[in-house]
Amino acid sequence: VKQSCLSLLAILITTQLCLTTPSLNAAESGSTETHTPRSVILIIGDGFDDQHLTMARNYLAGNAGTLGLDALPVRGAVQIETVSPDGTRLYAADSANTATSLATGAVTNIGRIGTDAQDRDRVTVLELAAHAGYATGLVSTSSVTDATPASFAAHVNIRMCEGPDITNGGELYGQPFSGCPSDATQNGGAGSIAEQLAKAPVDILLGGGAKFFDQSIPGQSQTVIEWAQAQGVRVIRQKDNLANLPASGRVIGLFDKENLEVRWRGTDGRTAENADVSWLNRIDWRLGSSADPEPMECEPNPDYGDTPSLAAMTEAALTGLAARSDKGLFLMVESASIDKQSHKRNPCGSIGEIEQLEEALAAALRFADDHPNTLVIVTADHAQAAQILPEPSLFAAVPVPVYSPGKVARVKTPEGGVMRINYATNNFPKAEEHTGANVPLFGNAVAQGVLKPFMRQRDVHQAMLAYLGLNEEETTP
Amino acid sequence: VKQSCLSLLAILITTQLCLTTPSLNAAESGSTETHTPRSVILIIGDGFDDQHLTMARNYLAGNAGTLGLDALPVRGAVQIETVSPDGTRLYAADSANTATSLATGAVTNIGRIGTDAQDRDRVTVLELAAHAGYATGLVSTSSVTDATPASFAAHVNIRMCEGPDITNGGELYGQPFSGCPSDATQNGGAGSIAEQLAKAPVDILLGGGAKFFDQSIPGQSQTVIEWAQAQGVRVIRQKDNLANLPASGRVIGLFDKENLEVRWRGTDGRTAENADVSWLNRIDWRLGSSADPEPMECEPNPDYGDTPSLAAMTEAALTGLAARSDKGLFLMVESASIDKQSHKRNPCGSIGEIEQLEEALAAALRFADDHPNTLVIVTADHAQAAQILPEPSLFAAVPVPVYSPGKVARVKTPEGGVMRINYATNNFPKAEEHTGANVPLFGNAVAQGVLKPFMRQRDVHQAMLAYLGLNEEETTP
Repeated sequence: VKQSCLSLLAILITTQLCLTTPSLNAAESGSTETHTPRSVILIIGDGFDDQHLTMARNYLAGNAGTLGLDALPVRGAVQIETVSPDGTRLYAADSANTATSLATGAVTNIGRIGTDAQDRDRVTVLELAAHAGYATGLVSTSSVTDATPASFAAHVNIRMCEGPDITNGGELYGQPFSGCPSDATQNGGAGSIAEQLAKAPVDILLGGGAKFFDQSIPGQSQTVIEWAQAQGVRVIRQKDNLANLPASGRVIGLFDKENLEVRWRGTDGRTAENADVSWLNRIDWRLGSSADPEPMECEPNPDYGDTPSLAAMTEAALTGLAARSDKGLFLMVESASIDKQSHKRNPCGSIGEIEQLEEALAAALRFADDHPNTLVIVTADHAQAAQILPEPSLFAAVPVPVYSPGKVARVKTPEGGVMRINYATNNFPKAEEHTGANVPLFGNAVAQGVLKPFMRQRDVHQAMLAYLGLNEEETTP
Repeated sequence: VKQSCLSLLAILITTQLCLTTPSLNAAESGSTETHTPRSVILIIGDGFDDQHLTMARNYLAGNAGTLGLDALPVRGAVQIETVSPDGTRLYAADSANTATSLATGAVTNIGRIGTDAQDRDRVTVLELAAHAGYATGLVSTSSVTDATPASFAAHVNIRMCEGPDITNGGELYGQPFSGCPSDATQNGGAGSIAEQLAKAPVDILLGGGAKFFDQSIPGQSQTVIEWAQAQGVRVIRQKDNLANLPASGRVIGLFDKENLEVRWRGTDGRTAENADVSWLNRIDWRLGSSADPEPMECEPNPDYGDTPSLAAMTEAALTGLAARSDKGLFLMVESASIDKQSHKRNPCGSIGEIEQLEEALAAALRFADDHPNTLVIVTADHAQAAQILPEPSLFAAVPVPVYSPGKVARVKTPEGGVMRINYATNNFPKAEEHTGANVPLFGNAVAQGVLKPFMRQRDVHQAMLAYLGLNEEETTP
C-alpha cells in the first residue's frame, strides 16, 4: 500500500508540481532551467550570545515578551571552534576565525581571514555561490573590511590588513605591526582586504570602511575605490543612493570612514562604571561601604546622523540581488556593533544594534515570503562579556557592602524595571574580552531539516552549501 | 476526500490500535483503562546556562565533541520571569521562584516556594499528577528541602524554612531571621518544608537534607522522619538501599545531612583565584605587572565517599515509580550543585555535576526507550556567573598587564587545552551572583510538538500538564 501511494504521489508531482516546487536535485546537478530560485540569507549578530539576546528581549519586548527571533520555528545552538597556531584547541574565539569557519568550513587561528591554520586560502560559500551563478552580497554595520564581512570574500593571515597602507607592515594603535607581507601587493600578493574586496565576486557590498578604500594601491596612482570605479563598479556614499541601486553590475556602498555609527547610547554617553567603594572596604571586605552607579536610560546616539539602518541596507541588497540572477542569491548581513559596544561596556549600544538585527530579520522574512525557497539563518560568531545581574544583589540583605569587581550599568527599561549589566572580563579601558559559550541559532521554516538542533560553525557552512547545491571540491576560487 | 480518509483512520485506530497507542484524549478525560502509560521526566540543571553547558562540552567531550544533551532532537530556549514584591519585573532570579514557575506556572517573587506573589499556595504539576493517579518522585543532589525539589511539593513564603527549628524565626547564618510564621506548625500552618514533604503525595523522594527531617516537630516528641515512618513511609539512608526499593508505598531516601557531596574539585581543592597584580599596576593600569593563577586539573572530591550518583537515584526512582502506577509517572530530577559550585567559583565542581546530569539523562532516555510515551525535558532554572574567557587574553600582545578584575580558574582539559573560567559578579567570598540569560531547553523525540523553540518557564509548566492531561482548574491540592 505504501509503495502504490508513493507512485501516485510521484505522478502527481511530476505532472503538476515539478515546475513550481523546490527541487534540491535540480540545484545539486547545477541545472538552472527547471527550478525556482534558491537563496540563503545568513544574518550574523557579532558577539550575540544568550545574555545579549535576553538583554534585548527584556528591553525591547519586555521580560514576558518575545522578539522576532523568538517567533522563528527553528532554534538551536552552535559550538565555536578555534585552534592555536600549535594546533591546541582554544575555548574562546574572535570574529575572524569564526566568520572564516562559517564562510569556509575551516577551523582556524584567531585573526585569520579566509585562510586555514596552515595559511592556505579557503574558498568561501560566497565565492562558490558566485561561481555557480548566484547573485551575492555582503552587508554590515562595520567597515566592510572588518573581520566578519571580509572572511566571506578575502584571504589574509591577519585581520588588521584592512587597507593598503598597513599591509606591508608599519604602526597600528601606537604599536609596531608586521602586517601581512605575503599578501601585500608590492610583494606580488592579492593585497589588503580592501583591494581584495574591490576585485571579489560580490555584487553588492554595503557598510563602512571608506578610509581603507580611499588609500592608494601600492605603486599605482589610483586609490582602491578609484580602481574599482574604473572597472565599472558603481560606488555610493549616501544613504539616499540605496533607494535606486542599479539593477545590474557591481555596487560598493561605503557610508562611513570606519564602522557605522550605532543607534543608541546611555544617558549622556555613560557606559558601565565601577561601584564607588570606600577605603575601609578596600582594606577588609566586611567593612566600609559601596555605592552603585546611578541608573541610566537608553537615548539616541547624537552622532548617528544619516547613517543607513541595517534593515535599509538589507532591503536594498535583497532587491538588487534578486534582479541580478534567476538562480537565487547568497547574502550575509551582519549587525557588527553588538560586539563592539560590549567591548566598550555600553549595553544601550548593544541593545540598539540587536534592534537593528531584528529589523534586518524582518526584511529577510518579508523577502522569504515573496521568494519561497529562501533559507534564513540567524546566528552569532562568538559570545561576549555582558552579563545580566540581580538588581538588587541576591545578597543585599547581608550587612556588608556587595558589589561587582567589574563595571556595572543599571539600565532603566521601558516597562519600569532596572536591568543591571555587568562587564568584568578584564581591567582594560574600553576592551572587554569575548567569552566562549555556544551561541544561538535560528532559522525560518525553510531551515527545518536543513539546520540541526546542535551544530558547529563548520556544519552551518556545509548546510548552506548543501541548500544551494554547491560543492567546494569542484571549484577553486 | 480529507474527511473520508480521517474516518477510515478513525476506524483503524478504534479497532486496532486503541489499546497500544498514546491517546491524549484518554489522559485528558481521566480514563486510566484504555491507554499506555504516559510519563514526564523533568531534568533540571540548577544554574545550567550556555556558558556552563559549553564548559562541560569542552571538558567532557572536547571542543569538537557533543554531549548527550547535544544529540537530543528538540532544543530551544526558556525565558526566566521574576517579579519584585511591588510587581516590578526583575531580570535575574533564584531557584525558588523559577522552580515555582516550572512547578506551578506562577510568576512569583525571589525566595518563594510553591506560592504566588500574593502568598497564595499554587497547586504543582506533581500534586496534580498524584491526584490523577500518576506515580510521582523528586530526586536531587541537594537537600530535598532545597528550593528546586521543594517547589514541586511544598508551599512556604521563604525558601530558608527548610526544617521545623527555623520556621517560626530565629538566627540563620549568624543573622536574625523572621522565618515563615504563617506556615509554622505551632501557629496552625502546614509546617516547614521538611514537614510538608513528609506528608506530600511524593511516592519516592531521594536526595540530601537529613538534618531537617531529624528535627522535632514543634509540640511533639517525634522528629519529622519518625512521624513519617510512623505513617508507613520507608526511610533509607544508604546508597545500597537504592537497589531494592519496595514496589509500593512511599519512600524517603536521605543520603547526607544537607546537600550531597559533589563528584569533582580543582587540584588540592583550589577554586578560582585573583591575578597577582603588582602595586605599581594598582596605581596606574598601564604600569607594573600581573601574574595569572597557575593552571589546575579536575580531580575526584575526596569527600564524595559513598554518595549515590544522580543516575543511580534516577534509575531507582524510575523503576520504583513504574511499578506503582499503570497510568504513568511524573519525576523531577535535579543536578543541584552546578549552581552551588558556580557560587563557590569551582568550575571542576560544576563540570562534574553536569556529567552527573548527562548520566541521569542517559538513564531517563533508557527508560523512555522501554516506555514509549515518556516525555523527557531538560532545562535550567536560571543562569550563573561562570564565563569562559580567552586563554591567553585577546589583548595579550598589548604591552601592559591584562587580567580579570574577578577570580579566574585555568582548567586543563583532557584534550590538552587550558580553559579559563572567570567569576566576577561580586566581591563576596564563595557567593557569586546568578545571571539573567535565558536558559537551554532540550527534549526527546516525544517532545516534538509538545515543546516550542522559545518558551517561558510557565509555558513549560503548561506543556507538562497538557501532556499528562492534567487541568489545574479542576483540582485543589
